[in-house]
Amino acid sequence: MAVNLTIFEDFIPVDGVRLGIAQAQVRYPNRDDMVLIELVEGARTAAVFTQNAFCAAPVQVARQHLERCSPRYLIINTGNANAGTGPQGMEDALSSCQQVAEHCGVQPDQVLPFSTGVIGELLDMSAFERGIPACYKDLSETHWSRSAAGIMTTDTLPKGSSRRRDINGQAVTISGMSKGAGMIQPNMATMLAFVATDAKIAQSVLDIWCKALANASFNRITIDGDTSTNDACLLMATGKGSLVVDDANSPEAKTLFAELKEVFQILAQAIVRDGEGATKFVTIQVDEAGTQQEALDVAYTVAHSPLVKTAMYASDANWGRILAAVGRSGLVDMDLDKIQIYLNDVHIVENGGRCAAYTEEAGAAVFAEAEFTVRIVLGRGDIQEVLWTSDLSHEYVSINADYRS
Amino acid sequence: MAVNLTIFEDFIPVDGVRLGIAQAQVRYPNRDDMVLIELVEGARTAAVFTQNAFCAAPVQVARQHLERCSPRYLIINTGNANAGTGPQGMEDALSSCQQVAEHCGVQPDQVLPFSTGVIGELLDMSAFERGIPACYKDLSETHWSRSAAGIMTTDTLPKGSSRRRDINGQAVTISGMSKGAGMIQPNMATMLAFVATDAKIAQSVLDIWCKALANASFNRITIDGDTSTNDACLLMATGKGSLVVDDANSPEAKTLFAELKEVFQILAQAIVRDGEGATKFVTIQVDEAGTQQEALDVAYTVAHSPLVKTAMYASDANWGRILAAVGRSGLVDMDLDKIQIYLNDVHIVENGGRCAAYTEEAGAAVFAEAEFTVRIVLGRGDIQEVLWTSDLSHEYVSINADYRS
Repeated sequence: MAVNLTIFEDFIPVDGVRLGIAQAQVRYPNRDDMVLIELVEGARTAAVFTQNAFCAAPVQVARQHLERCSPRYLIINTGNANAGTGPQGMEDALSSCQQVAEHCGVQPDQVLPFSTGVIGELLDMSAFERGIPACYKDLSETHWSRSAAGIMTTDTLPKGSSRRRDINGQAVTISGMSKGAGMIQPNMATMLAFVATDAKIAQSVLDIWCKALANASFNRITIDGDTSTNDACLLMATGKGSLVVDDANSPEAKTLFAELKEVFQILAQAIVRDGEGATKFVTIQVDEAGTQQEALDVAYTVAHSPLVKTAMYASDANWGRILAAVGRSGLVDMDLDKIQIYLNDVHIVENGGRCAAYTEEAGAAVFAEAEFTVRIVLGRGDIQEVLWTSDLSHEYVSINADYRS
Repeated sequence: MAVNLTIFEDFIPVDGVRLGIAQAQVRYPNRDDMVLIELVEGARTAAVFTQNAFCAAPVQVARQHLERCSPRYLIINTGNANAGTGPQGMEDALSSCQQVAEHCGVQPDQVLPFSTGVIGELLDMSAFERGIPACYKDLSETHWSRSAAGIMTTDTLPKGSSRRRDINGQAVTISGMSKGAGMIQPNMATMLAFVATDAKIAQSVLDIWCKALANASFNRITIDGDTSTNDACLLMATGKGSLVVDDANSPEAKTLFAELKEVFQILAQAIVRDGEGATKFVTIQVDEAGTQQEALDVAYTVAHSPLVKTAMYASDANWGRILAAVGRSGLVDMDLDKIQIYLNDVHIVENGGRCAAYTEEAGAAVFAEAEFTVRIVLGRGDIQEVLWTSDLSHEYVSINADYRS
């Protein structure tokens, strides 16, 4: 079902990062369900976590550990999100870090835990006894592809992006992987993304960049408006390469940031392309907004509208539904006459009504494509926001209604 | 598909209200698609209209006319919403009032127009030439049932509620009808409700009551979060009965308000019960909120979550999805330990996790019912809000995706 997405296998190893995979039987047998990522000493890490107030135990532990020191190991399990599990869940998340620390010879707070899967069930801790030694033994710089597959839950394809660039004479490598969108799958929750580079980046720059990159990518995708209890996005800089970034405003820094942004966006868009039951990949672009917030309000209202999403699914260029969604997005003093709506280059709405030159055929031709852009011009300022979403299909309902039944 | 909803036919005539129906061929032949409601001279009317910034031409005209004087006639057509139709749409809405005024011998601003149906197409004005004389000729106090059917678009059943009460020795009659929820049906938009009583109610009281009643009923239902360009809710008091209400705080006024509220809520709930593809009727109740806004934020986030709605459809008491929806509803400083969630009387969540006494069987038994209540206790104050919603089914996607195709 994935829209214009193919399996990514051309990962370039990042000096200072090793990955190991195991079949730990967290929930199912015969399945790669545990991944250990090792970072070289001196590597720096920044992270963005879920905004959901019910954040899962591993998210709380990861956040605390990251505040204390730079992580040396990330331990990721699928099959169980360790969310909604109360005090025992916190103990289990801490215990998994303790076990990694003992096996790998570091301190427990140098380990970050990540879990994705069923909500509300306690972890089977014996899985970590099985999985951690096996992962550790499997550690290799070349195991990105197997790791990208190992963190999947209901994703239909592993997701990755990788590149090597020469920036001002210095070689830089970037590799990243991602999985499952938000609460795209019911209990198999969670968006996870891990991006590594061998550049040496100051912690202060890394922290700012990780937030900015997430806002330009993972915070601009939406399948169904739900947000997981376990979402996390990590940016890791091993410092093993020759490029050094201490100042975010240097030309090299700007070039590296642009490269990272492309990788983040490819990983984020891959999640939408592989969205539950997705048959369309749609860009929602809002131009000429007065503020960023109103641009996002309009974009999300359109992107979340079940009526717009089912019209996309039906390839029905139902501009009345788009117009109605814009109308209820809560903008103060909206001047209808200034609003224009386009499907790709086809002008559909002007002056509060259907564009005189618009034809159903022209609109239908755009909506029949697997990918297209809905562009809404507000005429209130010069702010632009872009986000990516999918349609709402029978398959979406089937996946989410039939799960567990 | 309607959930516990049967056809309502026991309308009691309201002295001072006459209704006429016609087959005007607005869009389809052989269909009751135009209704004229006549109010006796001296009747008072209050209204609440859509909050959608793209409100349709008839909504704009109705709002203007109502500001100027008390209406004598309401003209309602189905088949075409006259929305997104620009300046011509405004002319057409005014013209329909003009035609009614000429035929019935009143001023044009004593007529309120209401349209529901396809968005973005110009009205065929010849329908009014055919329909208005036929409606006028058909006027009768006993035509409530035919009118309730005549304002339907894709509703599967006409919706009504009616009662006669003795309030402090005075006989009072209330009758009302409603149709289609919000943008429950794609282009066949619009929630409409018309409630009449023969009590004599001061205009100032009527205005306050209409807002309060809509807030307790039509503003507390949601199918898919979309809001129509044409929604309207009217409260009409003919003054032909013996009960007089000048003071909203009198005992009689409070009793009448309570009776009206029941009628409004029955009409609103009927819309949800007849929601697109609805197989469940679900009450979302938020208790112990700190403010009304946070109670509504939580209730709507749960009610709009596609994951919660598909779980309802699947009769899967997936409490993790409810918990995650509460978690992302944006409450500041949410104390997870205080939050409790119940399915009817079954306690499912406490202390941020699954209730110790909860069993899947107990939850599944509630979710298997056609009607149940999800109750979320926030432990932050003493505010309660209640709203009503439906599930998200395959049928919903089919109805909205297949329309026009």
